[in-house]
Amino acid sequence: MKKTKTAKISRPTAERLSEYLLILEQLLADSKETISSNELSDVYGNTPSQVRQDLFQLENTGRIRHGYNIRTLANAIRSRLGMGCTANLAIIGCGKLGSAIAEHVPFSTYSMKLAGIFDNQRSIIGKKIGGVTVEDVRNLEKSLQRKKISMVTLCVPPSAAQEVAEKLIAAGCIKGILNYTQKRLKVPADIVVRDRQIVCSFIQLAFFSNQGM
Amino acid sequence: MKKTKTAKISRPTAERLSEYLLILEQLLADSKETISSNELSDVYGNTPSQVRQDLFQLENTGRIRHGYNIRTLANAIRSRLGMGCTANLAIIGCGKLGSAIAEHVPFSTYSMKLAGIFDNQRSIIGKKIGGVTVEDVRNLEKSLQRKKISMVTLCVPPSAAQEVAEKLIAAGCIKGILNYTQKRLKVPADIVVRDRQIVCSFIQLAFFSNQGM
Repeated sequence: MKKTKTAKISRPTAERLSEYLLILEQLLADSKETISSNELSDVYGNTPSQVRQDLFQLENTGRIRHGYNIRTLANAIRSRLGMGCTANLAIIGCGKLGSAIAEHVPFSTYSMKLAGIFDNQRSIIGKKIGGVTVEDVRNLEKSLQRKKISMVTLCVPPSAAQEVAEKLIAAGCIKGILNYTQKRLKVPADIVVRDRQIVCSFIQLAFFSNQGM
Repeated sequence: MKKTKTAKISRPTAERLSEYLLILEQLLADSKETISSNELSDVYGNTPSQVRQDLFQLENTGRIRHGYNIRTLANAIRSRLGMGCTANLAIIGCGKLGSAIAEHVPFSTYSMKLAGIFDNQRSIIGKKIGGVTVEDVRNLEKSLQRKKISMVTLCVPPSAAQEVAEKLIAAGCIKGILNYTQKRLKVPADIVVRDRQIVCSFIQLAFFSNQGM
């Protein structure tokens, strides 16, 4: 009997799988076709056994004699991470960080669509950034609902963060928030928040590079 | 005999401590003075026992009857994360992301100093961003050495990433790289690289919010 691998995967496994995917895409772009778990672990910076354990969570990995077919493996990860249907997302706060994200993040490659950008500055509202017209944040709730947006990233000043979060809760359609503000948000348990305070990455880098970790 | 807590802390513990620190700073800014491990775990989103286990790695936590003095606890974390002496850092690539980091990340609050910004665009070189004059990336190696810069963040186009990494290796003074490019870098083992591909955070958010994780 064929064993189906539909069990929930853990958070760290899902995180590693998404990072393997980016590595595989890069290798494909460099015209590489196959990879071994040793090679992948070498690029990622973990152990071959960890890689094999993670890939064991996938179906149809493209396993060949000495490794994996990269394209097949990438597709297996996409499938496992649920990249079948497109998720609509919005950027709230279109300063430098927000517009860098709008212009440079390849959302469509990973089954995501940038469907809205919101700001409160008159000078920005109405402009097109990354192909999307910036809307007035006063219309946030209705626009999120109308456009069926389920994820947002918060790039607003920290003083505005919780106020915007309240509007996201009220909209009722938001399942995930990527929070780039310095402020921790208070939201109900059914909304997933991932905090991405940039300064935190620098603090960790400073510590790890001093420890040689 | 007093037990001294100088053992190495693990990577996940160090990561959580840095995030607790940001939470504590925010609470201080909101004029809060004390916190219990239950409250901290509630804001962070883990368990009180995990918080207590992490804080056990610190000395002089400011433990009081029903919790901790926030200022003392924050200082204990700072001390444990080695924030005694200032680390000089540089931003390489001063597009929207690079300049957002230069202008908005509160480096000095966490014992870091933005000591250099580098770009290859004539229109930007010589301008002041976040109080620092943008230098020509052709002078990268010498300037890094002269300014005793030990950490950099890479915000260049992916096609330039490895080429810049080679210069960082050649400079000989770089211990850590925060890599915002889509490209995985090849560097010697004594240089710590933290990959921060923004699209990866979105992929993970999409997955976690669909799973309700």
